Amino acid sequence: MSTDTDAWERFSARMRELRHLESIGGLMGWDEQTFMPPKAAPGRAAATGTLASIEHERLISPEYGNLIDELSERDLDADRRAMVDLARRSRDRAVKLPPELVREMAELASRSQAAWVRARASDDFKIFEPLLQRMLELKAQQAEHLGYEEEPYDAHLDLFERGATAARLQPMFDAVTAGITPTLEAVLARDDGSRRFPPGPYDTDAVLDYCADLLSRMGYDMEAGRLDVSAHPFTSGVGPSDARVTTRVDPDDPKEAILASLHEMGHGLYHLGQREDWVETTIGTSVSLGVDESQSRLWENHVGRSLAFWEGEFANAAKALEPLAKASPEEIYRAVNRVQRSLIRVKADEVTYPLHIAVRFQIERAISNGELQAADLPAAWNELYGRHLGIRPPSDADGVLQDVHWSIGYLGYFPTYLIGSVYAAALFESFTAGAGGPDAVAGLLREGDFAPLLEWLRRNVHRVGSSKLPAEIIADATGRPVDAGIDTAPFVSYIEDKYRDLYGL
Amino acid sequence: MSTDTDAWERFSARMRELRHLESIGGLMGWDEQTFMPPKAAPGRAAATGTLASIEHERLISPEYGNLIDELSERDLDADRRAMVDLARRSRDRAVKLPPELVREMAELASRSQAAWVRARASDDFKIFEPLLQRMLELKAQQAEHLGYEEEPYDAHLDLFERGATAARLQPMFDAVTAGITPTLEAVLARDDGSRRFPPGPYDTDAVLDYCADLLSRMGYDMEAGRLDVSAHPFTSGVGPSDARVTTRVDPDDPKEAILASLHEMGHGLYHLGQREDWVETTIGTSVSLGVDESQSRLWENHVGRSLAFWEGEFANAAKALEPLAKASPEEIYRAVNRVQRSLIRVKADEVTYPLHIAVRFQIERAISNGELQAADLPAAWNELYGRHLGIRPPSDADGVLQDVHWSIGYLGYFPTYLIGSVYAAALFESFTAGAGGPDAVAGLLREGDFAPLLEWLRRNVHRVGSSKLPAEIIADATGRPVDAGIDTAPFVSYIEDKYRDLYGL
Repeated sequence: MSTDTDAWERFSARMRELRHLESIGGLMGWDEQTFMPPKAAPGRAAATGTLASIEHERLISPEYGNLIDELSERDLDADRRAMVDLARRSRDRAVKLPPELVREMAELASRSQAAWVRARASDDFKIFEPLLQRMLELKAQQAEHLGYEEEPYDAHLDLFERGATAARLQPMFDAVTAGITPTLEAVLARDDGSRRFPPGPYDTDAVLDYCADLLSRMGYDMEAGRLDVSAHPFTSGVGPSDARVTTRVDPDDPKEAILASLHEMGHGLYHLGQREDWVETTIGTSVSLGVDESQSRLWENHVGRSLAFWEGEFANAAKALEPLAKASPEEIYRAVNRVQRSLIRVKADEVTYPLHIAVRFQIERAISNGELQAADLPAAWNELYGRHLGIRPPSDADGVLQDVHWSIGYLGYFPTYLIGSVYAAALFESFTAGAGGPDAVAGLLREGDFAPLLEWLRRNVHRVGSSKLPAEIIADATGRPVDAGIDTAPFVSYIEDKYRDLYGL
Repeated sequence: MSTDTDAWERFSARMRELRHLESIGGLMGWDEQTFMPPKAAPGRAAATGTLASIEHERLISPEYGNLIDELSERDLDADRRAMVDLARRSRDRAVKLPPELVREMAELASRSQAAWVRARASDDFKIFEPLLQRMLELKAQQAEHLGYEEEPYDAHLDLFERGATAARLQPMFDAVTAGITPTLEAVLARDDGSRRFPPGPYDTDAVLDYCADLLSRMGYDMEAGRLDVSAHPFTSGVGPSDARVTTRVDPDDPKEAILASLHEMGHGLYHLGQREDWVETTIGTSVSLGVDESQSRLWENHVGRSLAFWEGEFANAAKALEPLAKASPEEIYRAVNRVQRSLIRVKADEVTYPLHIAVRFQIERAISNGELQAADLPAAWNELYGRHLGIRPPSDADGVLQDVHWSIGYLGYFPTYLIGSVYAAALFESFTAGAGGPDAVAGLLREGDFAPLLEWLRRNVHRVGSSKLPAEIIADATGRPVDAGIDTAPFVSYIEDKYRDLYGL
C-alpha cells in the first residue's frame, strides 16, 4: 500500500471539496445580486451562514491539518509544494477564527447587503447603520483573532492582498497622489463639460446586447459566462468554466455600462484563464485582489479607454446604438476619458480614481483603529470628499452608500483597486515593449485583434494562478526585481502622457 | 444545565442545517435549468456531488442518530414527535446508502441531465443512452440497499410517495383507466380539430408577462418567486420565501405556457404556504410528490381548465395577447380542454393524461425488474404509445426523450402525477361542497376571487406540512376514512361530467 499516494489523494479530495464549496458560495452570491426574489433574503442569509460554517469546519478539521503537516515534510515538486503551502496558509487563518464568528459574519453579510440595497435605494443611511455597525464590530474581532504587524487594518488588508500593510501601502498612495496631482489640476482647469457621449435615450436592451457582443469578440466565452444587470457591477467565479459578469445601464449614457462590462470581463477572463489541471486545487485561482484588479483595469483602461480601441470599435458601437451615429471615434475617446471632480467611484475617470481610493483608505484605517463608528461615516465621508475631490455628496446614496463592500465585510478591499491600476500599467507597459512598441499595439487594438494581449496575460498571469506570490508574478511578467516594492512609475507616466496629450497641455 | 433543552436545540440546529443544504441544492438545480452557462455543466456536476455527499454525511452522522434516539424516548408534543419521526425516516434511509453511491448518483444526475438536453435538442437518443444506462444501474443498486416489500420498483416509489407500492398503485391505474375509457372513446370520435387557440404568432415576451401577471393576481407572490423559461417547466423551492417556477412558450400557441405556469404555481403556492415556524424543521415541507402534484393539478385543471375561470379571465388575456381578441371565453375553454391522441405528456389533456402515466408506470416497473435496459427504451416506448394512446412517436425527441425525470434519477416519480390528479379531484370536490356548491365556486372563479380556495388549501394542506401522512392529510381534508385507499371516484366522475357536457354527449 502506497501511503504516499494515499495522503496526496486524500489531500486532493479535500482541496477539491473546498473549491466546490467556494463555487457554491459563488453561485449564491451571484444569485443574490441578480435574480433572487427580495423576500428570500433572510432565508438566504441563514443558508449562507451554514455554508460558511461547513467550509470553515472542513478547513480547520484536524484530519486536513495532519495531511498538510505530513505532506509538508515530503519531497514535493514545486506545484504540489505551492498547493500545500497555500492550504496551510488558509487553514492557519481559519483556525484562528471562532466558528461562531465565521457564521455570524456570513449571515450578517447577507442581511446587511440587503439592507444596504434598501438604504441606497431610499437614500436612508439609518436603515443600514445598525447592520454596518455590527459588521465593523465583527471585523474588529476578526482582526484581533487573526493578528497583525502594526495596526488592526493590516489584518484586514492581508485578507485581500497577501502581505499588504497600511505602512507599506502608504508610500504607494503618496507617490501616486503626488505624481498625478499636477496633471489633474492642469486638466481640470481645461474641462468645459463638452466631452460626453451623444445624448440619449439609449435603448437599455440594445446597450446590454452590444456589451455582450463586444465581450464575445474580445475573447470572453459566453458559453462559460453571462452578462446580466445588477445594482453594483461584479464578477462571480461560480465554477471552473463559469465566470459571470454584470453591469448596469443608464439609458441616458452608455459609458458606464460599456466600461463596467470591460472591467468585469477582465476579472472573468482571469478566472476562466486558470490552468485546467489546477482548478480543483488551492493554486488554480486568482492570487490576490490586486492582481485580479490589474486584469480588470487593464481591459477597462488600457484597452477600453484607448484611442486605437475606439478607432476600431466605433463602427460596431454606432451600428448597435443609434444615438452614437452622430459621434466620431475621437469624441468617444474623449468622452470615456473625461476628467472631472465626481462623486461615484465606479464612474470616475482614471486620473481622479486614485483619490476616491485614498479617501476610503483613510476612512478604513480610522475605522480599524477605532476612531470612526458606523454612525460617523456619512459625515467623515462627505468631509474627505470635499477635501480630496473638491466636491461634497448631496446625499448619502451618492456618498457613503455607493459601494457594496462594507456591507459584506470587505474592509481593506478598496486599496487593492489602486494596486490594480498600478500593476495594470506595469503589465501593459511590459506587454507593449514585447509586442513591438506602442504603435504596433495600437495597430492590434484598432484591428480588434485582442488575442496577442489575452495570450500574453494568460501566459504571464492567468495560468500562473496562485503558484507564486503576487509580487513575484508581477515581477516575472515585467522583468523588474521582486524586492523593489510596488513601482508606481509606469502608472504615473501613463497618466501624464495620455492626459497631457488629451487635454492639449 | 437542562440537558432536555440542549438535546432539542442541538437537534433543531441539525434539522436547520439540513434544510439549508436542501435549499442550496434547490438553487443549484434551478440555476442549472435556467441561467447556467452550458460549459459550466461538468464543474456543476462535481459540486453537486460534493453537496450531496455533505448532506448525506450529516444525515448519517452518529451524533444525529444519537439525538434522534434520545429524543424519541422523550415525552414530546405531537409536532416535535412528527419532526423526530421524519428525521429518523430520512436518516434510516440515508444510512442504508453507501456514500460513494450517493455521490455518484448526484454527479451523474447533473451530467446526465445535460446530455438529455443535448440529446433532445438533436433528437439523438444515443447521446443520452450510456448515461441513462449507468443511472438505471445505480438506481437498481439503490433499490437493493433500500430494500422493498415485493419488487424493486417499490423502493423507488417509496422515495417519492411514502408507502406507495406497485401492487397498491395498480388498482388505481386500473380503476382510472376503466373509468375514463368510455368517455375518452366517445369524445375522440367527436374531435374535429377545431378546438384551438386562435392562430398566432404570439409575442413570447407578452405571453410570459401575461403569465406572470396572472400568477400574481392568483396569489403567487412575485417578491418570493420568479417565472422564467426552461426546457422543461419546473418549480424549485429554493428557500422558505423563495419558490421559483418556470414555463415554456410556443409562439404559435400560448396554451401550454399558460397551463404550465398555473401548474407550477400550484407547486410554488404549496411551498410558500408552509408554516413559518416549521420551515427549518423536517415537517415544514411538502409531504409527498402526490400531494404536491395535487396542488399543481388543482390549479391547472380544476381552475385553469374551467369555464368559469375563462369567463372571468378572458378579457385580461385578450388585452395582453393580441391574437386572442378574435376568440371568446367559450372557445378558450374548449381549446384548453381539447381531447386528442397526443405524444407529449405535459401538453396532454386531462382525459388522456392518465394513459401517458400508465405507459411510464409499466416501463418503470419493467426497468426495475430488469426486463428493460436503456437501449430498449425507445422501442418499448413507441410500442406502448401505439397500444395505449393509439399514436406512435415519429422521433425520440417527441417520445422517450420528452421528460427530464430519468436523467436525474427520478425513477418512480411519474405515478405521483396520477395520484396528484386523483387527489386534486377529491380536494376540489370537498372545497366545493364546503363553499356552497359548484355554482358558488364558479362565481368565485368568474370574479377572479381565488382567495377562498387558496385559504382552504393553506389550512387543509399547505400548513399541515409533513406533520401527518399523505393519506391522512387527504382524508382529513375530504372527510373520508384513511384506510379506504385511494378513492378514484371523484376524478372519474369529474372527467365524465365535464367532458360529456363539453363534447355534447
